[in-house]
Amino acid sequence: MALLSDKVRGLFDGTNFAVLSTLDPDGKPHSTLVWVKRDGDDLLFALPKSRRKTANLSRDPRAAVVIFDPASPYESAQVQGTASIRDDPHGALADELSHKYTGGPYPGFAGPDPHWVTARITAGNVNTSWPDS
Amino acid sequence: MALLSDKVRGLFDGTNFAVLSTLDPDGKPHSTLVWVKRDGDDLLFALPKSRRKTANLSRDPRAAVVIFDPASPYESAQVQGTASIRDDPHGALADELSHKYTGGPYPGFAGPDPHWVTARITAGNVNTSWPDS
Repeated sequence: MALLSDKVRGLFDGTNFAVLSTLDPDGKPHSTLVWVKRDGDDLLFALPKSRRKTANLSRDPRAAVVIFDPASPYESAQVQGTASIRDDPHGALADELSHKYTGGPYPGFAGPDPHWVTARITAGNVNTSWPDS
Repeated sequence: MALLSDKVRGLFDGTNFAVLSTLDPDGKPHSTLVWVKRDGDDLLFALPKSRRKTANLSRDPRAAVVIFDPASPYESAQVQGTASIRDDPHGALADELSHKYTGGPYPGFAGPDPHWVTARITAGNVNTSWPDS
């Protein structure tokens, strides 16, 4: 069952940034801008373990993701899904995403040697907004 | 008390799109791409009353907003706040936002004569991600 249409896959396969929303301990939404990679219908994120979004997803895996191409902002996709977290001790995904987005190795935004995890979000609901549809 | 720095104000005062996150009835996050206008430290959104995000904010006013300039995506702002909703029977804000973003009157994405409301989000927490800071 393919949840993500070719058009939505294209948004995730490009170098568009995504907004990842999680739930704070009190239940309010928490959202940040992130790199993303698609694997089938799953979305993969490289997160430092120390970040609030990582703690949020570990406690409550429910998440939402929005992505759009800034060159065509009226075509956006919204995914609601459930995250599973696993360790990425060597930061392999962070490095892969860095090559995807910057063309080079990870530039160290998160400081030296963060403890990386991979969040894999399996899509539940997918919605799109296209002006022509 | 100014919660939004000049840099963050600049992001909202430009024609950058924002991602607005609300809470579905079961508590999971729901996020969509929206136009936004700043009024002091408040963020204003024009929402058709029929949309899920409008029902969400009417039931639970807790929201998160992310904005960035696609030309400089490593500088993004995240706002968590609380929404108040009021009717906008003539769609004045939708028209104002349309002029801001498209340069012309509202192009009718939401169909003919939607029942408009204005969501005013008062910032609680503001965080920024700047690579150089």
